Amino acid sequence: MGVPAIIPFKPQNPKSRLSCVLTPGEREIFAQTMLSDVVGAVLGAGCDPKVVSTEPFPFLPAPVETIPLGLNETLNKELAGMEGPVLIIMADLPLADSQAIGRVIATPMDVALVPGRGGGTNAIYLQRGSSFRVDYYGASFLKHARIARERGLSCDVVDTFRLHTDVDEKEDLVELLIHGRGTSRKFLEDLGFELSLEKGRVGIRRKTESTDVESSSRKD
Amino acid sequence: MGVPAIIPFKPQNPKSRLSCVLTPGEREIFAQTMLSDVVGAVLGAGCDPKVVSTEPFPFLPAPVETIPLGLNETLNKELAGMEGPVLIIMADLPLADSQAIGRVIATPMDVALVPGRGGGTNAIYLQRGSSFRVDYYGASFLKHARIARERGLSCDVVDTFRLHTDVDEKEDLVELLIHGRGTSRKFLEDLGFELSLEKGRVGIRRKTESTDVESSSRKD
Repeated sequence: MGVPAIIPFKPQNPKSRLSCVLTPGEREIFAQTMLSDVVGAVLGAGCDPKVVSTEPFPFLPAPVETIPLGLNETLNKELAGMEGPVLIIMADLPLADSQAIGRVIATPMDVALVPGRGGGTNAIYLQRGSSFRVDYYGASFLKHARIARERGLSCDVVDTFRLHTDVDEKEDLVELLIHGRGTSRKFLEDLGFELSLEKGRVGIRRKTESTDVESSSRKD
Repeated sequence: MGVPAIIPFKPQNPKSRLSCVLTPGEREIFAQTMLSDVVGAVLGAGCDPKVVSTEPFPFLPAPVETIPLGLNETLNKELAGMEGPVLIIMADLPLADSQAIGRVIATPMDVALVPGRGGGTNAIYLQRGSSFRVDYYGASFLKHARIARERGLSCDVVDTFRLHTDVDEKEDLVELLIHGRGTSRKFLEDLGFELSLEKGRVGIRRKTESTDVESSSRKD
């Protein structure tokens, strides 16, 4: 048995800040492909993934539990009964790989935190689940570091951009198109997304039939 | 003698995308404090820093060479004569620490790249300087990975958010206020910058005399 890895997931109307580039249906599938990449990385690191989802949805590569409570309440209820190690890892980390997760769960400290971009917490590893309580939302990284400190737990901060890079906004898709290796990158590419260079800065654009028409009409 | 570490630097009108929150003079000092943090991290990792600057400026903690050519031309001229190892590291990485740099220079590969956010390259380590040529600007990470491949050099990508996080825009200052430990964080705090929470997202705000007046007038 590997370390249990809890992956919270929101299947309905996910990633709303990507609405400018993806339809609601595309966002749903995209969120599932990112989850799939995280599950793959977690399995590769020898962990046992369990998805805890706010709504039922048909995802097969890992067991899914539908949770009635909020994220913090659900996780803290789970943690309270866990005397062994546990990993909590977010579902929107499509650059996650087994090496990075391996570094997290190899920590010699009581707690290992992986900060997300903008103050969040993308992964928490606990040698003993019941020793901790989570407090997501807002600047949760600072809250989690303080909770560890207040409980006298030694705390590691694992330095990995692969787990630091959560995908919320259009600009984050650049990272995925450059560094991704999994199904979520392929999904974006199949939709026609590619890197673009504008005024020296790297962005993304989506090839559509209309822009194809546009570029061919330029030949006239 | 440690590994030579070349740090390109632009002292005049640096970080123009921070103009919305910093005056030109503040940006100049801020760029120098970030450079100072990078120099400290480089020294801590046992490297010998050398700043190559586009303009003369009075920076004491490391030798400074003023370069007449463009960045790529200057660096490639330097590399051509180097048969030993060399590190090239950007000056706008205020989260840099010795551990992350140590991981870069400990690579068993011919080349180690650290990607920056948005497709750039924040650090390049070469076992043999003359084996490589740099090509900065645009999606330079992809260009550098290709140059290594074309030259038959084995290439490592070092997974570190501390060296991945370059500071260009206002949002990047959030990372510095959360994870920074050096002079550039202190500089921002002395200017009155602090984290703020708006609609659940972490941002920054600057306490000024006028906002102090504003908040006290609210008590009326």
